[in-house]
Amino acid sequence: MEQPIFYPIGTPVEDLDTPVAVVDLDIMEQNIKTLHSFFANTTAKVRPHIKVHRCPAIAHQQLQAEGNTGGICTAKIGEAEVFAQSGFSDILIANQIVTKQKLQRLASLAKTNTITVNADNLKNVQDLSDAAQEADSIINVLVEINTRLNRCGVEPGQPAVNLAKAIAKAPSLNFAGVTTYEGAIKHENYEDLVTETHKYIRQVLDSKEAIEKAGIPVDTVSVGGTHNYEIAGAIEGVTEIQAASYVLMEWNYVPFRPMFKPAFKVMATITSRPAPNAATADCGHKTLGPDKGLPMTDTLPGLTITRVSAEHTKITWDENEPDKLNVGDKVWVTPHTLEICVNLFDYMFAIRKGKLEAIWEISARGRYD
Amino acid sequence: MEQPIFYPIGTPVEDLDTPVAVVDLDIMEQNIKTLHSFFANTTAKVRPHIKVHRCPAIAHQQLQAEGNTGGICTAKIGEAEVFAQSGFSDILIANQIVTKQKLQRLASLAKTNTITVNADNLKNVQDLSDAAQEADSIINVLVEINTRLNRCGVEPGQPAVNLAKAIAKAPSLNFAGVTTYEGAIKHENYEDLVTETHKYIRQVLDSKEAIEKAGIPVDTVSVGGTHNYEIAGAIEGVTEIQAASYVLMEWNYVPFRPMFKPAFKVMATITSRPAPNAATADCGHKTLGPDKGLPMTDTLPGLTITRVSAEHTKITWDENEPDKLNVGDKVWVTPHTLEICVNLFDYMFAIRKGKLEAIWEISARGRYD
Repeated sequence: MEQPIFYPIGTPVEDLDTPVAVVDLDIMEQNIKTLHSFFANTTAKVRPHIKVHRCPAIAHQQLQAEGNTGGICTAKIGEAEVFAQSGFSDILIANQIVTKQKLQRLASLAKTNTITVNADNLKNVQDLSDAAQEADSIINVLVEINTRLNRCGVEPGQPAVNLAKAIAKAPSLNFAGVTTYEGAIKHENYEDLVTETHKYIRQVLDSKEAIEKAGIPVDTVSVGGTHNYEIAGAIEGVTEIQAASYVLMEWNYVPFRPMFKPAFKVMATITSRPAPNAATADCGHKTLGPDKGLPMTDTLPGLTITRVSAEHTKITWDENEPDKLNVGDKVWVTPHTLEICVNLFDYMFAIRKGKLEAIWEISARGRYD
Repeated sequence: MEQPIFYPIGTPVEDLDTPVAVVDLDIMEQNIKTLHSFFANTTAKVRPHIKVHRCPAIAHQQLQAEGNTGGICTAKIGEAEVFAQSGFSDILIANQIVTKQKLQRLASLAKTNTITVNADNLKNVQDLSDAAQEADSIINVLVEINTRLNRCGVEPGQPAVNLAKAIAKAPSLNFAGVTTYEGAIKHENYEDLVTETHKYIRQVLDSKEAIEKAGIPVDTVSVGGTHNYEIAGAIEGVTEIQAASYVLMEWNYVPFRPMFKPAFKVMATITSRPAPNAATADCGHKTLGPDKGLPMTDTLPGLTITRVSAEHTKITWDENEPDKLNVGDKVWVTPHTLEICVNLFDYMFAIRKGKLEAIWEISARGRYD
């Protein structure tokens, strides 16, 4: 694993060695303020999803801000274990847990924490119940409803009711409510975003009503995300928003949610100059993540990232401006897909006004289990 | 970081929890044998590049096989530090080292190990020399020549000679020879592969002759890779081949090098069944790496991976065969780009004939520095 060289607090960011994962605290704090202040006076609250940063230090700041449920979301039991160790006791694992070992770990974690999990399958409900009984714990279970991604979840309506009944009847399980992950809806047209958001969340609320008609109370309706937090958060009946991206943001998402700014970047060093208008930096796919799109750089006007390979990033500029970058220069690279990039690092260097303020462990890095 | 559940030796692979990184030892050992046996009776030897696995346990096996130089390649000083700690004392860092901190670390590592590095820049040669003088060590330096990728390296011929002269004159540096990374040449037509290989390596050998004409001996000509090892390794004057992929292999490379088989796979579990002919597995881009192409699965005939997102992989099959996979079933996923996938994991589970034989730390994971 990564072995950070620990620099003194106050070190200028340019003096850090590269490639290094950097978070700008002023930007991150403003992102948190922007989203959380919306939830100060709403019935719905935000449950931060930590999948994008995997970093307890950041999640603590999210829960110190206003308008949250007091809990977090994770995608994996392994992430939940790390965050429980870091003082988070109300955790929704927004996913299915199905293997025997993970069911045991889930039930064990529920002995000392408030643990909620998604289910979309009757056999899985039985297995969850068996594991909780064996461990003498109570697991909260949400019915996950498939609204858009066709990836997980039962269909809305009667299938959701049937699963809710099974959960409500199962020993050692507590039926907690309904949820969906509709996926990030990216509309530049706000009216379309409102229409789409209502369309998918309506299916969840209709299922909620059908479950309540069957005599089962529904406490939680957990939907939405960074893409539609203020729309979903204002719909009557919605109790919590699972928002992830807002806190660090990624640049390809900014056109759709311009109220948030990218707070996380990789700083790299130019190591070679293959041509008068080209330079090679010491970051690549191993540090930046996949190439759904090319990363961007705002180091100097006119620089373009034209190619990324495993260990190298090539930057070019107008051929009338030779030697715009030289060997040893530092450059800032903003990855295309943030959550995958952050997961590549074990440590994040927190910077304010260009100086080091903290080094944070990305404690749940690699916890895919 | 990942916290492996340590299973007893002999555990059936299907009993490991998922997603898990698995190496098949029979296949890996055959891959090593195939490549290394070629070098048993050649002048050129193989210098395994560890970038693809970052795992000392594997590199030790590569150096125990015949036909190697006794040394390894890395891409980063951070990887070299990890491997030096694991008993490798002859390390070529096949890259440029330019930052002050890394130059100091390089010079320090060279005090107790045989350390070689690539250079392509006069200022960098001066910096390397200053660092080695300061640390009272000797650094071996290869002139890197740009032959194909336009990413690093001086041009062949006179620029290579000029740089070699500067290295030979610099205090505390030892001019070691010439190198190029021509990049993996993927030709299905063998004749074209031979032609291309000779074309690029010719430029390196011509530069070598020019440097020798200038009165500077050239010990090392380090070129080639898995893509052309038997062609490059047979060219007179070539002293070592930097081969990486052969040991674990990736499936998209197999059509070009069918003598090697994929030895590394990710085992995952089906967690949801969104449709009668579709299943969702608990691996995704965070465990498999980027989507230059979709991964493949050979779990059952007729299964196709149709979509990968951050945490999920969707598998579909012919709609006339419903329920081919069920929740809880294990599936095997072979990633598209292996070296990036392996770097996502902290541990690799070594399997022989379906049973656990060892758990190996991927010790240099995350060492991008």
